[in-house]
Amino acid sequence: MKLASLKDGRDGRLVVVSGDLAWCADATHIAPTLQAALDDWDRVAPQLELLATDLAHEVIPMMRFHERQAAAPLPRAYQWADGSAYVNHVELVRRARGAELPESFWTDPLMYQGGSDGFLGARDPIPLADEAWGCDLEAEIVVVTGDVAQGAGRDAALDAIRLVGLVNDVSLRNLIPAELAKGFGFVQSKPASAFSPVFVTPDELGPGWQDGKLVRRLHVDLNGQPFGRTEAGEDMTFDFGTLIAHLAKTRSLCAGSIIGSGTVSNRDADGGPGKPIAQGGRGYSCIAEVRMIETILSGAPVTPFLKHGDSVRIWVEDDHGHPIFGTIEQVVGG
Amino acid sequence: MKLASLKDGRDGRLVVVSGDLAWCADATHIAPTLQAALDDWDRVAPQLELLATDLAHEVIPMMRFHERQAAAPLPRAYQWADGSAYVNHVELVRRARGAELPESFWTDPLMYQGGSDGFLGARDPIPLADEAWGCDLEAEIVVVTGDVAQGAGRDAALDAIRLVGLVNDVSLRNLIPAELAKGFGFVQSKPASAFSPVFVTPDELGPGWQDGKLVRRLHVDLNGQPFGRTEAGEDMTFDFGTLIAHLAKTRSLCAGSIIGSGTVSNRDADGGPGKPIAQGGRGYSCIAEVRMIETILSGAPVTPFLKHGDSVRIWVEDDHGHPIFGTIEQVVGG
Repeated sequence: MKLASLKDGRDGRLVVVSGDLAWCADATHIAPTLQAALDDWDRVAPQLELLATDLAHEVIPMMRFHERQAAAPLPRAYQWADGSAYVNHVELVRRARGAELPESFWTDPLMYQGGSDGFLGARDPIPLADEAWGCDLEAEIVVVTGDVAQGAGRDAALDAIRLVGLVNDVSLRNLIPAELAKGFGFVQSKPASAFSPVFVTPDELGPGWQDGKLVRRLHVDLNGQPFGRTEAGEDMTFDFGTLIAHLAKTRSLCAGSIIGSGTVSNRDADGGPGKPIAQGGRGYSCIAEVRMIETILSGAPVTPFLKHGDSVRIWVEDDHGHPIFGTIEQVVGG
Repeated sequence: MKLASLKDGRDGRLVVVSGDLAWCADATHIAPTLQAALDDWDRVAPQLELLATDLAHEVIPMMRFHERQAAAPLPRAYQWADGSAYVNHVELVRRARGAELPESFWTDPLMYQGGSDGFLGARDPIPLADEAWGCDLEAEIVVVTGDVAQGAGRDAALDAIRLVGLVNDVSLRNLIPAELAKGFGFVQSKPASAFSPVFVTPDELGPGWQDGKLVRRLHVDLNGQPFGRTEAGEDMTFDFGTLIAHLAKTRSLCAGSIIGSGTVSNRDADGGPGKPIAQGGRGYSCIAEVRMIETILSGAPVTPFLKHGDSVRIWVEDDHGHPIFGTIEQVVGG
């Protein structure tokens, strides 16, 4: 089942979307918003599944689905917690600034509590007031949970995963060092994130969902050029069950909590840092990573951060080359 | 105007509460929840004010208001961002561990993004799975905002303050050092916070609300003994307008965002760290602070963190000795 929220008021209007993303059906008679559906999932999900079946059979009124009319599936959420599951990425960040990666980072997930009061739709421009802030994309996988009890283990956490999607976790790189130095995490350096037009239930992914990981290629284009073709199922040190259990260690989680994987990042086939696509590598899911590799290789970064007018595309394809979650496609705006 | 949410479902049921907190009137015909009221404040607030006037005149159906039946005014929220406006507190934390306070801390607010997906009511027990986590209270002032535009200055931020209340920002002190060392802020070390039964509009506070600060004494009792009698209007380096503007530097804030002051903390009259109430001082708003002072004075902390069965009371009185926001009154549960 694929779900989206058409732009409408603060929380959007829930629709069920066809597998090929061409059509959608109003679902507000079942639940007005995606949050309302998640709040009452056991009762609502079977009704939404029936609607999705009817939509597939074209036996109900349907509308064209336009990704540009989609808000973030949860236009605002009660929780957005982003892990750093691809420890390769974290190791590169550290290495670029000459710092060691603590051994514990391979066993204890790094995670931050992000702002969740307002998200961007997949086609919304990235509002950037000041280019000097060093705006970066971060392409990631996300899941949305049901209610999770405090102390839940990995298996219970996996069972609580309701939906899977993509995020562009916009970051302001030049504001990060000062905030990290204060030790209290990110406040100003993580503005609103953008989400894929569509979130899908794990069963929709078939063998592309395994052990709490999305086993699919994550595509990132920057200004129309291939920038990242990483494999989300590889090098993910912590699966989503482990990330959710980490967050739930000391408190319960409310239905509709969004948990992120952190920037998807692969090592090169030789075990070293990943190469650019132009050099036969898989490329990157954020600009910071190519800048780190440039720094490691040549002493200084070359690729600039995002400027006004730059464009970003993020998507994941099914076996037939069709985007599963739709496409995040944003231009940096003033 | 005083507002509360009676326990009912995930988001409570909005009521208007009388000035003396003895009575309340159902407000769900105006807005079903406090979040719904905040989402449409300009239209809804005047109607709630009329209801409050009718309640004061006893010309509408009214119910007894029982604080134990109150959920957090926002049982879950889209944002909870907690500042550290009382820099005296931060300086003591640092001094106790032998660290310098960076000069910038006096001009650049420290703030963290907290979990907002589930809050405790004022009488709910503090769920503590493991006493070894080092459970502490933190008594603070909070405000709830309307929508705030990205880049809003202090004055616009002050205008956006809709409600004022109290929080017990529960902290797990023994989990904090490891999380701070990771640099990404608090995830496991800040479980669900508890809020005062009632939030009030700033006009309700009269001269007790000045320049974005609550100019009132904050009372904290620990196990039935006076523990803190600090002055919230003193030593607050950053007022709420400044804190909100800090958070809104790079992104807009959604109506219903809760912003905290951080632990209220006063210097002693002689300029040094505050003394315990038993020694004629104003005491403390968290256990960590008295432990720091014990460490500075005698080399080691003496006061233990909270154990199962310990009790905490937090309130602020009006000129007649009546609690303005009701009382947070919690027992540590298993």
